[in-house]
Amino acid sequence: MAELMTQADQTLTIGIDVGGTKIKAALVDAQGIVIDSIRRPTNARQGAAAVIREITICIQQLRHRTTADVQGVGIGIAGQVETSSGRLLSSPNLEASRLPLKSQLEQQLQMDVFVTNDVRAAAFAEWQFGAAKGVDNLICLFVGTGVGAGVVSSGRMLTGARTPAAELGHVPLVFQGRRCSCGNRGCLEAYIGGWAIAERLQQALTREASTHPVLRMPDSNDDTDDEVQPPTAEELATAFHDGDRLAVRLVNETAQYLAAAVVGMVNTFNPTRLVFGGGVIEGLPELLEPLLDHVRKHALTVFTEDLDLRRAELGGDAGSIGAAELARQFASSNSASVAFDSRSTYSEG
Amino acid sequence: MAELMTQADQTLTIGIDVGGTKIKAALVDAQGIVIDSIRRPTNARQGAAAVIREITICIQQLRHRTTADVQGVGIGIAGQVETSSGRLLSSPNLEASRLPLKSQLEQQLQMDVFVTNDVRAAAFAEWQFGAAKGVDNLICLFVGTGVGAGVVSSGRMLTGARTPAAELGHVPLVFQGRRCSCGNRGCLEAYIGGWAIAERLQQALTREASTHPVLRMPDSNDDTDDEVQPPTAEELATAFHDGDRLAVRLVNETAQYLAAAVVGMVNTFNPTRLVFGGGVIEGLPELLEPLLDHVRKHALTVFTEDLDLRRAELGGDAGSIGAAELARQFASSNSASVAFDSRSTYSEG
Repeated sequence: MAELMTQADQTLTIGIDVGGTKIKAALVDAQGIVIDSIRRPTNARQGAAAVIREITICIQQLRHRTTADVQGVGIGIAGQVETSSGRLLSSPNLEASRLPLKSQLEQQLQMDVFVTNDVRAAAFAEWQFGAAKGVDNLICLFVGTGVGAGVVSSGRMLTGARTPAAELGHVPLVFQGRRCSCGNRGCLEAYIGGWAIAERLQQALTREASTHPVLRMPDSNDDTDDEVQPPTAEELATAFHDGDRLAVRLVNETAQYLAAAVVGMVNTFNPTRLVFGGGVIEGLPELLEPLLDHVRKHALTVFTEDLDLRRAELGGDAGSIGAAELARQFASSNSASVAFDSRSTYSEG
Repeated sequence: MAELMTQADQTLTIGIDVGGTKIKAALVDAQGIVIDSIRRPTNARQGAAAVIREITICIQQLRHRTTADVQGVGIGIAGQVETSSGRLLSSPNLEASRLPLKSQLEQQLQMDVFVTNDVRAAAFAEWQFGAAKGVDNLICLFVGTGVGAGVVSSGRMLTGARTPAAELGHVPLVFQGRRCSCGNRGCLEAYIGGWAIAERLQQALTREASTHPVLRMPDSNDDTDDEVQPPTAEELATAFHDGDRLAVRLVNETAQYLAAAVVGMVNTFNPTRLVFGGGVIEGLPELLEPLLDHVRKHALTVFTEDLDLRRAELGGDAGSIGAAELARQFASSNSASVAFDSRSTYSEG
């Protein structure tokens, strides 16, 4: 059937998900299918130049391995990206304030490069090809070590004045509550992010011993105990699935925090679909069980009548697929803002 | 200069703000100037038919008093309005679930009618003609008896799947906190809405006597004290301006709740302008004094670099002016969704 494909269908782009430890690069077609992929270390500790070198190597290898014409490159990276310029304004992984990522890469590669936040790229992929395909109003929440989101409202990805916005992990949920990674207090992330679940678990274990073998705190008085690390969110999930009482209580509390926050998101955006992904959701899918009932009971009634909930479908590839699709739409429109607008897809696809 | 005006400039529309006790109707030109206005009682207790009759009388009187051609009618009403159909899905003032307000009025008036939420109409007016004119990313928060908002993102008014969305007064701020008018717990409105400030004041006065004359609770044991009503948010403002210690503490706490919530709004939308209006802000403008500093300190740094703050400019006319302008843009585009999009204004103005 290849003969029947139109030129638009044959457009390939490269999407790159730049994480804290590894870079995932994928050659992606216009249907969001990964044709080829490469992983390399991020080498973030060696600085921005080293990271850009790794990104460049990924792109050159993927281009070398295909005979197809590659139309553009999309980058999804943790941190705040200025949409118009493609500058990385701040990043948790890179000590590179105001890094002109787009212009540096375009100069080296002689290709169009679109840069955005990694979570917004992943949400864009779930919208275009995954759990929210064809939906015009959705919230995609990724709960991993951190908590990030992408929002589509009236068929357009929400963007703010300079950045892709939608930092729903940093909306206060507990007034003057736990200290967050962002410096503020009481953010959703400070309760349900992987690092926060681990902290809450460790604090619970200092008050209350658990009999479960994985829920063991290092004993600071015991010199032979050097190898014991404080338990993590993964170990909480293990203990929860074993029915450990303390773990069950902490997971239930986590589900309550998540549900309360999602009520606020629904009242803010009136979506018809909620999509949940990320490592914490994958490890503890039970967090989603009470969610829709809670939201239907506590959000504004008319906002929940058409609401449903799905697990994210694209897994760890979402970021690179979304970045590639943003690059494809960016190349065809040559406008950073239109790349987030479904109407460009519908009219030009 | 009237000869130089184009036909578009001469378009007049009628905007109607349907409140709980009174209807404000205004004949408005394309620059948002009120040419003529009328007020009538809402008569909400007599039911939907009575309210529709009062609205119709307002429109007929305004049309009768002008020689100009009136192009359409916009209605802003408290409650949840289905944007596509103009049905009132729920309302705090009217016992009329699923009221087909748009179709009933269009039938009676033989004119195009656009129906939306009253607060979104007021925010639209502040965006088109008031404190946020020309700004593409803004949050307009009205703190009165209730708390409502309108959000503009990338030059388009935020709308949800069915309704204008942006119910930022019903985003939880205090996990499992005070009971809200919406039935949920811990909403922003349950702390800073006029009714909630009054409740917090009354609860404080049952624990702690004030020496200020207006901060006096009715004495249930004193038969001669029937005429004393529990103090309200207005009386808190009076006592605050007199330097009463309890009032100062309550106002400071209210400012802290507001500031914490606005941090979440900024992290959600990355606006460049915040606009505040409504009776509580007018009575206690001091609530805004610490706000911008707090937000700059606690919101994500890159989200606040271009952020500023203004008081709303259109006062009590904002709702009717915004409804009239929505009707004007609706008439020229004949699309409910485009009426919220600044791009239609720019391309068709």
